[in-house]
Amino acid sequence: MIKPIGIIHTPYREKDECPIQPLYAPEAIGRVEVFEKYGAGLKDIETFSHIYLFYLFDKAGEIKLIRQTFLDDQSHGIFATRHPARPNGIGMSIVKLKERNQNILIVEGIDVLNMTPLLDIKPYIPRFDRIETASEGWTKNKEWRPKPKGRE
Amino acid sequence: MIKPIGIIHTPYREKDECPIQPLYAPEAIGRVEVFEKYGAGLKDIETFSHIYLFYLFDKAGEIKLIRQTFLDDQSHGIFATRHPARPNGIGMSIVKLKERNQNILIVEGIDVLNMTPLLDIKPYIPRFDRIETASEGWTKNKEWRPKPKGRE
Repeated sequence: MIKPIGIIHTPYREKDECPIQPLYAPEAIGRVEVFEKYGAGLKDIETFSHIYLFYLFDKAGEIKLIRQTFLDDQSHGIFATRHPARPNGIGMSIVKLKERNQNILIVEGIDVLNMTPLLDIKPYIPRFDRIETASEGWTKNKEWRPKPKGRE
Repeated sequence: MIKPIGIIHTPYREKDECPIQPLYAPEAIGRVEVFEKYGAGLKDIETFSHIYLFYLFDKAGEIKLIRQTFLDDQSHGIFATRHPARPNGIGMSIVKLKERNQNILIVEGIDVLNMTPLLDIKPYIPRFDRIETASEGWTKNKEWRPKPKGRE
């Protein structure tokens, strides 16, 4: 049974305001509120510079298995993209952890909608997560661009 | 509503056989079966060398907010670890994608139990996911060691 362990507070009230990825919002500050009953689970989180946030894309639109994305007008399978409208609707962002005040984390580089339900936090551990040999796949040479209007 | 989109088949029948992380099982081959109804969503996944698998830790034991882990005898908050017994029980592994045969993915470096329910697949995209400045946090200088017996 999946249920929120907290809420992510961000400056983004509308989907069109959300950056595509934290990479494109390096200075956006978010406040991750972990519900008090789970607060003890944050012990030592402040030793990490970066953390993963896992959350629900609770405002995502219709799920399509093949679709266009921000980065490309060509269509790709949903599992070959980071598009929010996906089966199970689990989102992931890697953010910089600036500060912890008990059960509140202040993070930088946030890219999700305000009031997004938080599901999990994990530490970013370079030896596990920094894959030096990874390819860019179809995203190679797809540079950032303004969000095509109406596209999530 | 979260429900499996597939099943991860691996050589690991028991928890004690599972490596701590894919890093420590670089050659372990897994077969990721995406249910046919979701198979179309894999279009272009084969352009990526590495993918994230998200799954349910459906065999994890009792959830404790503060506990010991493999890497350390000291206790840490669950959200500062990758321990499987966590609120919401969502697991994540980064694996190498070797081959795609329609709705079946052959992956290398798998670290999960056989028959683990698959929740999502996302591409590993170096410009988003390879954080050059990330610190090791408390895991610094904690080297791999054989799994302490009975510890998940």
